[in-house]
Amino acid sequence: MANPIDFYFDFSSPYGYFASTKIDELAARHGRGVVWRPILLGAVFKITGQQPLPTIPLKGSYAAHDLARSARLFKVPFKLPTKFPIGATAPSRAFYWVSDQDAALARKLAQALYHAYFAEDRDISNPEVTGNVAAKLGVDKAELIQAVNEPAVKERLKTEVDAAIERGVFGSPYIVVDGEPFWGSDRLEQVERWLKTGGW
Amino acid sequence: MANPIDFYFDFSSPYGYFASTKIDELAARHGRGVVWRPILLGAVFKITGQQPLPTIPLKGSYAAHDLARSARLFKVPFKLPTKFPIGATAPSRAFYWVSDQDAALARKLAQALYHAYFAEDRDISNPEVTGNVAAKLGVDKAELIQAVNEPAVKERLKTEVDAAIERGVFGSPYIVVDGEPFWGSDRLEQVERWLKTGGW
Repeated sequence: MANPIDFYFDFSSPYGYFASTKIDELAARHGRGVVWRPILLGAVFKITGQQPLPTIPLKGSYAAHDLARSARLFKVPFKLPTKFPIGATAPSRAFYWVSDQDAALARKLAQALYHAYFAEDRDISNPEVTGNVAAKLGVDKAELIQAVNEPAVKERLKTEVDAAIERGVFGSPYIVVDGEPFWGSDRLEQVERWLKTGGW
Repeated sequence: MANPIDFYFDFSSPYGYFASTKIDELAARHGRGVVWRPILLGAVFKITGQQPLPTIPLKGSYAAHDLARSARLFKVPFKLPTKFPIGATAPSRAFYWVSDQDAALARKLAQALYHAYFAEDRDISNPEVTGNVAAKLGVDKAELIQAVNEPAVKERLKTEVDAAIERGVFGSPYIVVDGEPFWGSDRLEQVERWLKTGGW
């Protein structure tokens, strides 16, 4: 069995959302699985000195335009959320907590959370909202809300974010195929080409 | 006659170099011309607060890797220059000075300068080197070296850079098709699609 692809993303990243709607099918076409790995860009930006897109002069306005255009190209529902960006600790902790019990369910949760935030403008940084999204998938909302404040779950996410940074992850989406890193939803074609050809 | 495409680039930008090797043919396939517009990212970064790629932790190492990989994909000769990035005032002023006399020659000069810097590791920030590259194309080297220090030529470049910033240009390459902006050499396929379809 070929190595799975690592798919790093921040729940507050629209380009991560776009990639999330394609990555599983793309990998499956080449007999690969995908390990979904939510991270926190806030922690990364402390190291790189980068700023959230909307706050950057010139680049921020371009991004707003490019996001709408990219959504049309990817054919995915998208509306820049009222509150953007958000700190994605609650959904990310919820993801890993569910993932340690049921990895397939965690992926469905990630997809549902992304959809809630970027298609329905629901503020998933609020544990109540993340809990509601998870409840629709059969997760116990009260348990989830309790879990996101447990030290072990906090530590679980922190460990993942630290490992991602250690590996060089600095943006979202960030996809690693057999050790080869690709940054950005506009690199999915290169990811596919790499999977197909083994590199160039 | 359809509007020409605006092609903004910094002579110190490897992604600008990659795009420069494709943009004319791409535009010609759709009956378009290209206006080449060198700018100075240093002036842009003062406004956006961005830093040169190699100096950004994590992102800088990725970029070094991605540049080599992109060069192979674009099938262009490339070596990260010994001195990188450079301030591109001399080659940019030389470009506009030549351009005001002979636009076609200025384009050839731009291509030759990019090649000298990214394929031959010659430091084109040095007016002597820019002069040598231009001399090969029949430009008078001594006149060129004098021109890059003339107030009118300095002002010519400054006006172009200011106009680019006014228009929202924040990176290189930055391509505008009928008012629609595209940032990055990895957006050339979208540029082509936009030319073909008129948008999506």
